[in-house]
Amino acid sequence: MMAPTARSVETRERILAVAAEEFADRGYAGTSIGGIAERAGVGKGLVQYHFKAKVDIAVTLVQSAFAQAPFANVVSVNPPPRGVAAIVASIRAVSRAFRDNVRVRAAVRLVREYDIIPVVFPTPYVGWMAVMAQCLRDATDAGDIPPGLDFETEGWHLVATFTGVQETSQRLTQREDLPERIEEMLQRQLRLLGVIDPQRFL
Amino acid sequence: MMAPTARSVETRERILAVAAEEFADRGYAGTSIGGIAERAGVGKGLVQYHFKAKVDIAVTLVQSAFAQAPFANVVSVNPPPRGVAAIVASIRAVSRAFRDNVRVRAAVRLVREYDIIPVVFPTPYVGWMAVMAQCLRDATDAGDIPPGLDFETEGWHLVATFTGVQETSQRLTQREDLPERIEEMLQRQLRLLGVIDPQRFL
Repeated sequence: MMAPTARSVETRERILAVAAEEFADRGYAGTSIGGIAERAGVGKGLVQYHFKAKVDIAVTLVQSAFAQAPFANVVSVNPPPRGVAAIVASIRAVSRAFRDNVRVRAAVRLVREYDIIPVVFPTPYVGWMAVMAQCLRDATDAGDIPPGLDFETEGWHLVATFTGVQETSQRLTQREDLPERIEEMLQRQLRLLGVIDPQRFL
Repeated sequence: MMAPTARSVETRERILAVAAEEFADRGYAGTSIGGIAERAGVGKGLVQYHFKAKVDIAVTLVQSAFAQAPFANVVSVNPPPRGVAAIVASIRAVSRAFRDNVRVRAAVRLVREYDIIPVVFPTPYVGWMAVMAQCLRDATDAGDIPPGLDFETEGWHLVATFTGVQETSQRLTQREDLPERIEEMLQRQLRLLGVIDPQRFL
């Protein structure tokens, strides 16, 4: 294959953007290469030149969403937050991404539909749990949390609780109340973790 | 239609039991009337005599699971628990049902796949949230929790947290660690709610 031209890169991005809308709206089963081509205003053959099959588009979207900043807890401020501030920033950033970023919404829906998609997606949750555990360790070292926490267990429950809040808000209000529920969750979680003077971080 | 005979009731139950296995294992898209008939050892026509279409079997299973005791917080001990004891008993009972009861597992999977199934399922969560709020009110009246809680908000977060714990345990360990994660969750939630001497209830 020749080196991709600017135009070819642009087409590939347009296909991915349209595919994200389709997967987020209709799910895996409801999305087709033909539908993506039509919505992108290109021929079906051009979509298949970039992606052999629907499943390849799904995998590309999921991988790019998982690699994104908020999930990796790299929040783009300088200096980057650490400890409790990083936990709060990453939970807020991920929850905003769930609402506002169609590629993240598509990825979340595809991962939720994993059992009807013939491919192994990256395991959700575990990377973020490890980051959370490290932030809790840093917060304890910094004296913001009293010693004695089991960092891995607390990291597990932080991510699980976030997952439940976002899923419940999505099912009951299509995520309309998500920002408010996330703030309620953060209040509760910082209290539970024993964060000293938690309002500093909220 | 004639009054159902004992044999006809038994056949209908066998079809539902097999359909629960199929939906729990394969999801909605992967399940068919033909597959259910084969696994139940009956003709396809007999399945269709009891249920016009696959969607009718799905609806019957979801409705019967939602009507079941643990979700309604009616735990079958005498006298029934109230307040904090009822919260603990219902969370444990629902989590056991998720692991051990194939009809509940099928219903949970079908409700999760709601966007590919052409029917409106009962809204999940809200009934259980209301029951939780009432239990918190009773617990406060009984002096087991200090006054001042917003019962509805706490009921929302209890159910959302349970949802996240069960979903995360399912994705990472196929619910193998669910009992242990539920006990960790209960410890944290009772502490968060300010339950006085929480070990009494655990």
